[in-house]
Amino acid sequence: MSLRVPSLDRLVSELSKLPGIGEKTAQRLAFYILRADSSFSSRLQEALFDVRERIHSCPTCFSYTENDDECDICSDLHRDSTSICVVEDPSDINRVENSGAFRGIYHVLQGAISPLDGIQPEDLRIKELLARIELSESSENKVKEVILALDADLEGDTTALYISKLLSGRVRITRIAHGVPFGTDIDYIDKRTLGRALENRVEI
Amino acid sequence: MSLRVPSLDRLVSELSKLPGIGEKTAQRLAFYILRADSSFSSRLQEALFDVRERIHSCPTCFSYTENDDECDICSDLHRDSTSICVVEDPSDINRVENSGAFRGIYHVLQGAISPLDGIQPEDLRIKELLARIELSESSENKVKEVILALDADLEGDTTALYISKLLSGRVRITRIAHGVPFGTDIDYIDKRTLGRALENRVEI
Repeated sequence: MSLRVPSLDRLVSELSKLPGIGEKTAQRLAFYILRADSSFSSRLQEALFDVRERIHSCPTCFSYTENDDECDICSDLHRDSTSICVVEDPSDINRVENSGAFRGIYHVLQGAISPLDGIQPEDLRIKELLARIELSESSENKVKEVILALDADLEGDTTALYISKLLSGRVRITRIAHGVPFGTDIDYIDKRTLGRALENRVEI
Repeated sequence: MSLRVPSLDRLVSELSKLPGIGEKTAQRLAFYILRADSSFSSRLQEALFDVRERIHSCPTCFSYTENDDECDICSDLHRDSTSICVVEDPSDINRVENSGAFRGIYHVLQGAISPLDGIQPEDLRIKELLARIELSESSENKVKEVILALDADLEGDTTALYISKLLSGRVRITRIAHGVPFGTDIDYIDKRTLGRALENRVEI
């Protein structure tokens, strides 16, 4: 049993719905919030509210933005709009940006094809990707390359195959390399990863 | 760099102030909240608000309660009010209750003596504990035993010593046993715990 304080139990129950937060962690967080000064709790409430009120999808790339129109990356004229990196979720853009290895623009699919979860190609932003490429063909910034930065799992593979078939002949389509992560001992690599790393070997 | 969405950054920054939640976990949680349906976010906001608005300290034991007066445990006539279990925080009451081994009432000190953190005996609810015991002496439910269920660390030890000196001669004072946790191999026990377990050995 708990302390029999209904609002505390409710907070624990809501917090434990977050990914990776179990019942015990949720209790610890709830007690921390109770003990912390009240401004922390109100700042957290405000942040939750603002995120819901202010953030919407960028109409071009479907990432998150607070702008009235396109997101900061889409509207940045210094970026190379002839190269589109396709990702599953807006959070993936963070990762690619952090790598510092890409200066093009993005397209967020908002998921990956997964028949088991009932996610079909038409549920994703694939037709919008096609429309962007078609639209660019009549402009001076024609899309030359689509880089697929999708997860290295069954859903990512399926989605990559689907998109590459759809776009083949129109643009150059590449997929980020799968192989041994930097700083990793080959002893600890699973056989599928090592298999892919061997297939995708490069000349040195 | 991030997605350059200020309200998202603010939510990540607030979430990462929670104990055990680093920057990466906070980002994962924030993206989850953004993706989840909006009712989850509003329920979480509401729960945070309610916890702040409705919960206050019980005037008797200083645990958390939503009641106008005493908390459910203090006002429960079926509990043995001659035995007070002293804990550092309200969350400790949860643990003791879950053990099912105690049917008395509680007293929350709201911390432990810690000169290094500037926490002196007068910052804790020690005088209120003394007052409760004194008040009980003129009633039919005179407090007979004070069980100290404090943390097994330096602060807990100091606090236990302080309270036991203060109350000595008035009531029976005990402290929960420190020893080998249930289900633990002696191989993995540190020497201080094993030392205490030997000191506190019991006849079988």
